[in-house]
Amino acid sequence: MVTITKNSNMVTLINVFTVEPEKQQKLIDLLIQATEKTMRHLPGFISANIHRSLDGKQVANYAQWRSHQDFEAMLHNPDASGHMQEIASFTKFAPNLYDVVESIQA
Amino acid sequence: MVTITKNSNMVTLINVFTVEPEKQQKLIDLLIQATEKTMRHLPGFISANIHRSLDGKQVANYAQWRSHQDFEAMLHNPDASGHMQEIASFTKFAPNLYDVVESIQA
Repeated sequence: MVTITKNSNMVTLINVFTVEPEKQQKLIDLLIQATEKTMRHLPGFISANIHRSLDGKQVANYAQWRSHQDFEAMLHNPDASGHMQEIASFTKFAPNLYDVVESIQA
Repeated sequence: MVTITKNSNMVTLINVFTVEPEKQQKLIDLLIQATEKTMRHLPGFISANIHRSLDGKQVANYAQWRSHQDFEAMLHNPDASGHMQEIASFTKFAPNLYDVVESIQA
């Protein structure tokens, strides 16, 4: 089970991809494939959660890594960057790393 | 505990705010205040999770609502829109609604 916890011992990647709606499913399939084949086997990978926007125009990956260093190492992995180059050929995306500072429930 | 689950019976709001680093903490404080005072008491609110980017330039809200309709009703709530107007005066943001289509763990 994937959980979101304040002040947890991990970093969160939030990456929002903008895509033509007719290619939204292709992007989702490629992100799942890249995660299953490569990312999930790299040191420090905790989870990836692929989100489809209701308007068809975006896909978001909410991913958790053990540390900033593990995430940076992934960026330099040739298999991982191969996946991202293919995805970059038909999407725009803006990744950033975060800490969870507050979690509020009803 | 906040959990991320594939095909769950809820919608996810991902809202990434861009802010001057010296105002990142002010933005975080306002988002927490808005959630505690207003959003968490509205019908259909499930959770809000406030994230601080490590580079200081962004804040992300990963929030869960019972339905698209509950989220839309929040947008028309005068207290909620008052909070968002204050936040809009010094940030840019791009909210969108999503479904979780895949969740992959190590």
